[in-house]
Amino acid sequence: MARLPGLGPRSARRAVLHMLKKRAVVMEPLAQALAKVAASARDCRVCGNISDSDLCPICADQRRATGVICVVEDVSDLWAMERTGGFKGRYHVLGGVLSALESVGPETLRIPDLLARIGAEGVREVILALNATVEGQTTAHYIAEALAPTGVAVTALAQGVPMGGELDYLDDGTIAAALAARRQV
Amino acid sequence: MARLPGLGPRSARRAVLHMLKKRAVVMEPLAQALAKVAASARDCRVCGNISDSDLCPICADQRRATGVICVVEDVSDLWAMERTGGFKGRYHVLGGVLSALESVGPETLRIPDLLARIGAEGVREVILALNATVEGQTTAHYIAEALAPTGVAVTALAQGVPMGGELDYLDDGTIAAALAARRQV
Repeated sequence: MARLPGLGPRSARRAVLHMLKKRAVVMEPLAQALAKVAASARDCRVCGNISDSDLCPICADQRRATGVICVVEDVSDLWAMERTGGFKGRYHVLGGVLSALESVGPETLRIPDLLARIGAEGVREVILALNATVEGQTTAHYIAEALAPTGVAVTALAQGVPMGGELDYLDDGTIAAALAARRQV
Repeated sequence: MARLPGLGPRSARRAVLHMLKKRAVVMEPLAQALAKVAASARDCRVCGNISDSDLCPICADQRRATGVICVVEDVSDLWAMERTGGFKGRYHVLGGVLSALESVGPETLRIPDLLARIGAEGVREVILALNATVEGQTTAHYIAEALAPTGVAVTALAQGVPMGGELDYLDDGTIAAALAARRQV
């Protein structure tokens, strides 16, 4: 349990002790549920999202726009985008970011799959919704370069002041970026 | 001491005890320095910044561009903007935000002074660098309306993903705003 992210040794001990005390009502059902999910979960063959079928519910949904693909690093980012309810297109989950140190290359990241989708699905716009970290932005840059020959519009999430953000608590880089990208009101 | 922002009762006690123990080397010099600053500090008559002269160093600096005014809520926000080193124009410190609850109106906020500066200084652009809070944005909206008749360009800091921001940890509003304001790469 302690090897799960976000769970320290102490929290793990508490969770395990709780389960040990409630073996029949908590531990057994959890074990069965985990085994069931582990057996049925698979990567969507189109976008890389995780679901219980070969084609994830988003890729299978005919009402989602097909001309726009939102590229995310991880399934957790796909969930974050979906929570906003503001995006009606399709996704492409990279499964990580480029990293020379950890020898993660374009092939590992499903970037060739993305390129293949551009022509096959008649994509007009690729939205790079990658994290504003160094690795995320390096990967975004690489994908933008790779997409250039296709002529598809490549956009990225705006960088700036987050909701509720107060200047005094923001880092200099964010303020500088928000100033550079200021918009007419 | 405990009435200072950011200092709880416990920290205040520690600070006071430290000063009491070092009365001659810490407490007396601090008292004198505070008295000196309190006597000399004043609001800049142009922008509302705090300095030791009638005209603050930024307003007095001939190298700063005169056509662009950056409107901030507080002196701490002016410092935050200056830390980025990315802004070469002048400032206007409102001294707060509009608040019906606390009965803070436009007059209290030096908004008439801002309007007076537009014509007097030949201002071309007003950048609203207000906090991305409800009060900050209400105030920004009010100022933009008040400036409309002058024909000056009114811009605002971009809203979006902060530097280093990871989608999974951002609120839905920020992601939605960053998606709506996405830019071509």
